[in-house]
Amino acid sequence: MPELRKDPVVERWVIIATERARRPMDFTREPTKSRGPDGCPFCPGREDRTPPELYRSGGSESGAWAVRVVPNKFPALHPDGEVQAAGEGIYDRMDGVGAHEVFIESPEHFASLASLPAPHVAELLMAYRERLLALRKDARLEYVLIFKNHGVAAGASIEHPHSQLIATPILPELVAEELEGAMRYFRMKERCVWCDVVRQERRDGSRLVLEDDGFVAITPFAPRFPFETWVLPTAHRANFETLGADEADSLARLLRDLVARLGRLFGDPPYNFALHTAPIRAGDPEHFHWHLEVMPKLTHLAGFELGTGFFINPTPPEDAARFLRRAAPPPDGASSGALAR
Amino acid sequence: MPELRKDPVVERWVIIATERARRPMDFTREPTKSRGPDGCPFCPGREDRTPPELYRSGGSESGAWAVRVVPNKFPALHPDGEVQAAGEGIYDRMDGVGAHEVFIESPEHFASLASLPAPHVAELLMAYRERLLALRKDARLEYVLIFKNHGVAAGASIEHPHSQLIATPILPELVAEELEGAMRYFRMKERCVWCDVVRQERRDGSRLVLEDDGFVAITPFAPRFPFETWVLPTAHRANFETLGADEADSLARLLRDLVARLGRLFGDPPYNFALHTAPIRAGDPEHFHWHLEVMPKLTHLAGFELGTGFFINPTPPEDAARFLRRAAPPPDGASSGALAR
Repeated sequence: MPELRKDPVVERWVIIATERARRPMDFTREPTKSRGPDGCPFCPGREDRTPPELYRSGGSESGAWAVRVVPNKFPALHPDGEVQAAGEGIYDRMDGVGAHEVFIESPEHFASLASLPAPHVAELLMAYRERLLALRKDARLEYVLIFKNHGVAAGASIEHPHSQLIATPILPELVAEELEGAMRYFRMKERCVWCDVVRQERRDGSRLVLEDDGFVAITPFAPRFPFETWVLPTAHRANFETLGADEADSLARLLRDLVARLGRLFGDPPYNFALHTAPIRAGDPEHFHWHLEVMPKLTHLAGFELGTGFFINPTPPEDAARFLRRAAPPPDGASSGALAR
Repeated sequence: MPELRKDPVVERWVIIATERARRPMDFTREPTKSRGPDGCPFCPGREDRTPPELYRSGGSESGAWAVRVVPNKFPALHPDGEVQAAGEGIYDRMDGVGAHEVFIESPEHFASLASLPAPHVAELLMAYRERLLALRKDARLEYVLIFKNHGVAAGASIEHPHSQLIATPILPELVAEELEGAMRYFRMKERCVWCDVVRQERRDGSRLVLEDDGFVAITPFAPRFPFETWVLPTAHRANFETLGADEADSLARLLRDLVARLGRLFGDPPYNFALHTAPIRAGDPEHFHWHLEVMPKLTHLAGFELGTGFFINPTPPEDAARFLRRAAPPPDGASSGALAR
């Protein structure tokens, strides 16, 4: 029997379509051709092709770098100007003021979060932190989303490994819904809902994928997508910016292990991730808990999802977690994330 | 300057990313190979491969048909059983009871809404009506969504032209949001918001694509997707089921003309549509107006959309409407939808 499941925070129902149950080998996709480093604007030696650098980390010799942050050359939102609102008959519009930045994750064109050493991934996470701290100071902004599009089907237009940041002058609807849902739960129980999620998932185990020092990867109870996996700190943390250097090391190990497991199951699948952290003017809320939502792109959103906001997911999260737990790294172990159960 | 625009009904903001503005020729996609009619379960002569027929129209000889409606062989929701809810720790689940049906739009494997004669498309619209009326009687159901996935990238797993229906035991979130937003507007102005949209778009003209007797096609003010187009009755109608035979003829002409124009601009693009009609227990609400949202699949949803609920659209709807108006049918005119301006 198919099952309807509700997200514990937002009003989002998903259909776990058991009559369409799919294992990793059932998801097929067209291979995409690599375009290679020729003419890639993010490769070393072409630093002048990007707008002026906002942040750089790593590299001891002059000119070398591990991670670079630059403004997006074709920004979705523009860093200059004031936020002006206007009407047009019954409609509302606002100037597209904000920020749109690119994290170039490595000088190597063919690197990935799974192939980079954990300390390098930790440098990237610290770059996220630095940009979040810097953008907090801009009084025009309400929210900063850090996200990654990996692979053409996940919306990446450049092959070189990169993630992005878009800062918006209004609080996005999904973030507002999460805050409201989490506040309702907190008022009722006086506990953070994600703290309760982590507690229940660690006790139950069926959706637990990985644990490392202070972090956990789980498949959520009501996932929108097959093999969707969330990464959360086990202790309560509202703001990603509080991440310390030691924590960045553990989180980097866990994240690269997770991406490597997805690679073992699906052969470098397209995926998105989105970092859900507290809004920049929310202080340090007791009811919000940052989390990173990793969403492999194995199916297409279709008319039903677009018309209802419901999602149809052919893979129960308990099955996905089991496949991910079994997709352990080879024994020589480039990855050191500890396997749950 | 990019622009933020808000939908007049729901809390949905889109970024019209003018620095990424895209014309029809800028959208490229990989061609998909046709699988052809061999083994197609929807082709004539293979009627026994589908579950027993729920509805059939057209065809005077015995055995012939124009449109067939059958249950989906792998239903996302199951027609049998009662709606049972249960908890699992902090989580909520419900049995996946509902309906999942397929409209086989034509006996011809390679037909499309653009190639079928308008009276045939009208028969399909009447089949939608009949199934909506039939499912109203099922007391377990709250909503019926009729939708279409055309092309692999839009989620179609079968090539033969078909649309679908999924009926759910709970009111979907997007429908609830539309009803709430429309009710807020109605309380303030005592008018239906979509009636006001139609009035403003017909007066303004910049987003008007097509008009036919009693129907209009517009690109919405805050479209999520490039070339997204909505079809609405010009007079207030809450329920699609009120569609009369004459109205079905006009609507069929307009819909096939719209799909043919998208074909002329993009060469048979993948697309979804979703019919937004009033919930089956809502009566005949003064504040809701049915509309059909047609969404070409020219870009990929990416991490930003999935993390915020905002959409980035590189094509202003005024530009999309202009391209669609110009993509008129050849003068021998298989299509008779009147061109706006």
